[in-house]
Amino acid sequence: MAAQEYVTLERTGDKMPLAGFGCWKIAPTDCEATIFNAIKTGYRLIDSAQIYGNEVEVGLGIKKAIAEGVVKREELFIVTKLWNTYHHKDHVRPAFDKQLEELGLDYVDLYLIHFPVPCEYTPIAEAYPPPGWLKNGADKFNYERSPIQDCWREIEKIAESGKARNIGISNFNVQTMLDMLTYCTIKPAVLQIEHHPYLQQKRLVDWVWKQGIQIMAYSSFGPISYLEMTGTAKDAAPLMEHDVIKSIAAKHNKTASQVLLRWSVQRNIVVIPKSLNQGRMEANLGVFGWSLDESDLKAIAGLDAGLRFNDTMEPAYGIDLPLFD
Amino acid sequence: MAAQEYVTLERTGDKMPLAGFGCWKIAPTDCEATIFNAIKTGYRLIDSAQIYGNEVEVGLGIKKAIAEGVVKREELFIVTKLWNTYHHKDHVRPAFDKQLEELGLDYVDLYLIHFPVPCEYTPIAEAYPPPGWLKNGADKFNYERSPIQDCWREIEKIAESGKARNIGISNFNVQTMLDMLTYCTIKPAVLQIEHHPYLQQKRLVDWVWKQGIQIMAYSSFGPISYLEMTGTAKDAAPLMEHDVIKSIAAKHNKTASQVLLRWSVQRNIVVIPKSLNQGRMEANLGVFGWSLDESDLKAIAGLDAGLRFNDTMEPAYGIDLPLFD
Repeated sequence: MAAQEYVTLERTGDKMPLAGFGCWKIAPTDCEATIFNAIKTGYRLIDSAQIYGNEVEVGLGIKKAIAEGVVKREELFIVTKLWNTYHHKDHVRPAFDKQLEELGLDYVDLYLIHFPVPCEYTPIAEAYPPPGWLKNGADKFNYERSPIQDCWREIEKIAESGKARNIGISNFNVQTMLDMLTYCTIKPAVLQIEHHPYLQQKRLVDWVWKQGIQIMAYSSFGPISYLEMTGTAKDAAPLMEHDVIKSIAAKHNKTASQVLLRWSVQRNIVVIPKSLNQGRMEANLGVFGWSLDESDLKAIAGLDAGLRFNDTMEPAYGIDLPLFD
Repeated sequence: MAAQEYVTLERTGDKMPLAGFGCWKIAPTDCEATIFNAIKTGYRLIDSAQIYGNEVEVGLGIKKAIAEGVVKREELFIVTKLWNTYHHKDHVRPAFDKQLEELGLDYVDLYLIHFPVPCEYTPIAEAYPPPGWLKNGADKFNYERSPIQDCWREIEKIAESGKARNIGISNFNVQTMLDMLTYCTIKPAVLQIEHHPYLQQKRLVDWVWKQGIQIMAYSSFGPISYLEMTGTAKDAAPLMEHDVIKSIAAKHNKTASQVLLRWSVQRNIVVIPKSLNQGRMEANLGVFGWSLDESDLKAIAGLDAGLRFNDTMEPAYGIDLPLFD
């Protein structure tokens, strides 16, 4: 397997692996073994989040890999995210400290604001992992009056303390990023967004790069992660079975998944696929040492449809907030 | 002609006319007479802006109408907007005062932030009306590091002083509005956006209403205002000649323009068409006392195409900012 490749983060010069491993929807019971296997398989970037509800087990997997000599801490690039319920300036640091404690780490490599949405606070002592978008027992979404600026200032302090080497954002659009650029002391190093051939967001991506911010893609395989959550995902043709993707895969003797991941990493966009299957876990790292050609890139560019699956207006979210409108 | 109708603004209870008159692209030489005629024709809401470069003449038209007894000041609803170059907290009030002086008014009824984009400052003494998106002589867009929160606080102070009875925003999306709702002392009363059958923004509009914010539509006729500026506008079928609009117009014995305006005002969205032609100026007020029926609304809903013509990425803007991505 060809060697991992990296993008460099502007402020710290840290190298972020282009092919990472995502922890969304890994059941806690599977998680320690999965993360251990992922690291053994060669993954060095682990993408975690408070809301995934499995940070204790992610931490145990990392700990085991280090204890068994598979990897050193400094060879790993651990990403995690602040959940929406802890945006208030008094809640950011305790929430982060709780994550370090659960992960069993002294620091993370990248800490992201998960969404530009401050949800009602629930104390950690009352419920942890945190509730989702709705406060437990609430039948209606309420935002908390915490400006992003206040939240970001606390995130910056975590960076200044060295406990998060790099900081960034997720699910922000150009307007909220432009505003952040007017007040930040430390510029976000990374933006994580939904990104796949059906939602390419080319103009946003190009603008973000020009600001010196790197991009991480989530949901590189498109609708497949959202089948149980959103109607749009059920209606869309699965990307892995799409003729355009399949014929490119056949041409290069690769899998459809590898084509979808290669499409991002070849353009310096980090990917974070998840698989509990050892074969697919390995295959998803096989995205270096070969290239899509111009005609492949052109064909994939033609699949853009502005189709967003992580759409907060879908009934499954239980809120009524068109976050990307 | 059926009587004007109104929407009520939440904080002040002020009544904002649903059919207004817009000042964009009225040449200063035509402007005094045009505004005077508009008021004489029955318009009570005048939508002005610093960047339109004709506020002296707008003011003269208003002054003449009052002097000749056509209208009293308190019967008018005057809207104007802060240009992007004056977002810094030290520049908002001087910019607003300059506008009051040019308009010859003691107060405005509604003051809007024109765009959520702080452009580089040019002092009023150096250039007024202000340069557009690019500083005079600059070949590249630079934003100024003025957070929207600082700008809004100054706008709130203008509201507190009584010099702007109501305050609001224009061209903000859900993310920047949600953030504003977390820090504002005075909630924006109004959002002004591009809104026509090709760009209906239904989810955004519904969410904004739920926040107690009223909507003003600009460019109700769609591409026609952008023909010299944007390629998209040239490629789009003119709305006034669109079969769906024309057949609805024929059915009700109205003009296509009246159908397009009625479509908004019937849903409590303020419109601000501009016309220098007396006949069309009168016709554009003829949007009350009759209704589009369910089948008309359904047919127009079907025209939505997410087509934005006021697109800051068009080369004509000279900047490189995908403001709505």
